[in-house]
Amino acid sequence: MARWEPGARERLVLAAVDLFTEQGYDATTVTQIAERAGVTKSTFFRHFPDKRELLVAGQDALSRLLAEGIAEASADASPLEAVAAGLERASSMMGPLNRELGPRLKAAVAASVELQERDALKSVGLAIAMTAALVDRGVAEPIAQLAAELGVLAFKRGYAKWSEDDSESGLAPYAVEALNELRAASASL
Amino acid sequence: MARWEPGARERLVLAAVDLFTEQGYDATTVTQIAERAGVTKSTFFRHFPDKRELLVAGQDALSRLLAEGIAEASADASPLEAVAAGLERASSMMGPLNRELGPRLKAAVAASVELQERDALKSVGLAIAMTAALVDRGVAEPIAQLAAELGVLAFKRGYAKWSEDDSESGLAPYAVEALNELRAASASL
Repeated sequence: MARWEPGARERLVLAAVDLFTEQGYDATTVTQIAERAGVTKSTFFRHFPDKRELLVAGQDALSRLLAEGIAEASADASPLEAVAAGLERASSMMGPLNRELGPRLKAAVAASVELQERDALKSVGLAIAMTAALVDRGVAEPIAQLAAELGVLAFKRGYAKWSEDDSESGLAPYAVEALNELRAASASL
Repeated sequence: MARWEPGARERLVLAAVDLFTEQGYDATTVTQIAERAGVTKSTFFRHFPDKRELLVAGQDALSRLLAEGIAEASADASPLEAVAAGLERASSMMGPLNRELGPRLKAAVAASVELQERDALKSVGLAIAMTAALVDRGVAEPIAQLAAELGVLAFKRGYAKWSEDDSESGLAPYAVEALNELRAASASL
């Protein structure tokens, strides 16, 4: 597999997550992140307004893609089929940076309550976006909420597995497989 | 229904949540909370180490009761039946203060990203506690995780409905009914 070459933005994200893990989120400064990434502070600020935004960057795009995929699923798709379409759409934005980030983010989140809180809120945001998109398709509550929660779980489980694996494939098949596993599990509740 | 008379601890919690809503979490001081509750600052510190703890007080007890109920469900209970037993056990700690807090907490959380983060993390903590208790019963992943997520959703939905209703009953039947609704919804995914 060809070595992936991160650009300045990607290097900044990787450097930040490593520093958060090593010394905590609060103790990490923008100057340190820029130094570790081998760029200037002004390069940091061309990409992110502050270190907090660096963490949540991408979340809005993720929510939007999940919702778009759900909205554009065929009219006769079941709630979970629509969620699968959302996962596929959102997976398209997850490239080598995201894959490399997986285990590092996990370590950073394990090390910091503040990052745990942000991470938890992120999941809630994704679930809200998917629930709204399902309700717009005419899916009744609480089916929409349940399908959205399964979608979030599938995204997380698929992402974790994809990050660990050494395959050439993108995230999409991992996320969809995780959703199918959850669907099967729901028969054994 | 006899008027419920909150003690000092309860008045502190209610005062804090109202102040968080009115002026934000960050801007609210312990002095203001004590004043609004009509107690001294040292009374505040007899009940809580700081304002943050005031918010999360009760969460550990909730997790423990959920896990205990699941652990002590009968050996042949299905995963969701065990979760229902956990919900019933945890509901036993939810009294008039919790009921009165429901709508106020909702307003406070809607007004503050920091409280949204704490609230999201709380849900994750409950799900982790229930997943672990289910795994201890021999429930396989991802069934345990899915059942735990349904339990968290049911607890939240039941709690919201109970807070709005004017019935004499406790939380337990609301939480169990919400879980049954989610079980039914899972057939329509």
